[in-house]
Amino acid sequence: MNDLHARRPGEEAVTLPGAFDAGLYFIGHIRTPWLQRADCPKNGLQTDAVCTVAVDPRFAAGLQNVEGATHLILLYWMDRAVRDLVRQHPRHAEGSRGTFSLRSPARPNPIALSVVELLGREGDQLTVRGLDCLDGTPLLDIKPYYATTDSRPGARVDRSGAAASGSPPR
Amino acid sequence: MNDLHARRPGEEAVTLPGAFDAGLYFIGHIRTPWLQRADCPKNGLQTDAVCTVAVDPRFAAGLQNVEGATHLILLYWMDRAVRDLVRQHPRHAEGSRGTFSLRSPARPNPIALSVVELLGREGDQLTVRGLDCLDGTPLLDIKPYYATTDSRPGARVDRSGAAASGSPPR
Repeated sequence: MNDLHARRPGEEAVTLPGAFDAGLYFIGHIRTPWLQRADCPKNGLQTDAVCTVAVDPRFAAGLQNVEGATHLILLYWMDRAVRDLVRQHPRHAEGSRGTFSLRSPARPNPIALSVVELLGREGDQLTVRGLDCLDGTPLLDIKPYYATTDSRPGARVDRSGAAASGSPPR
Repeated sequence: MNDLHARRPGEEAVTLPGAFDAGLYFIGHIRTPWLQRADCPKNGLQTDAVCTVAVDPRFAAGLQNVEGATHLILLYWMDRAVRDLVRQHPRHAEGSRGTFSLRSPARPNPIALSVVELLGREGDQLTVRGLDCLDGTPLLDIKPYYATTDSRPGARVDRSGAAASGSPPR
């Protein structure tokens, strides 16, 4: 367990597999104004901060044509998150919940996803709006956002209901 | 290079780093009707097929409360994709384009993302609609879809323009 998640009542951890099934390359880093987790906004819509996505020179040719998109999906690696929690108790929730019902960084594969507005590109760097992560966060992928397949304005999450229903963890 | 991507004119590959920076656990598998890539729909909206997301028993407690969401984001691993292409020539495009302007499986970290409609859950299995991947695809993560942060109905991708502008690769 690391410093970012002290175990709380109702939380459940599992023994992780002894080996990884696949490997990731960090393709760059994200520069944000936030140096400590407590400073990060709750999500990327709660800030107007302009952040920088710096792609490593090795992969920078992959940025060609990216300016054609108004919005991008960024995948990045929450390198300080614990990975063994299957049930966790969010700070402001009433009880513990399954990890896959949460957007918490603590998950078996701590891949975070943000939809960002693309403001511009200068060489290997993109300027974007809509991030909430720590400065220096490793970048995994950049994808164009397609409203047709990625936007579901009518989607709903019943935050209280499913938790309050008391459905057993299984 | 593997069987899923014969190099085409204008494509550019890089030498990948000698070591991975992080590791992934496969947390389950996706069951779909498609056994070969040629059978897969172009995207998850082009089919009504109901698919199954089978979470490994080790991680299944993480599904608690997931039924509170009408839509989920699934991250999965395109385990047959090449990883060294930074510019590629999509089959029906006029020229090559940067990998990060495409949703092609071929990318440094072949993590695919689909927004799916959650139809139901039985124990360790979810039934969903909106997938386009091969049967047996390894699962990496399940996240609730929040319209507030994830939906951008007005997002646009200028497919032809950015490619036709002839902007240099960097």
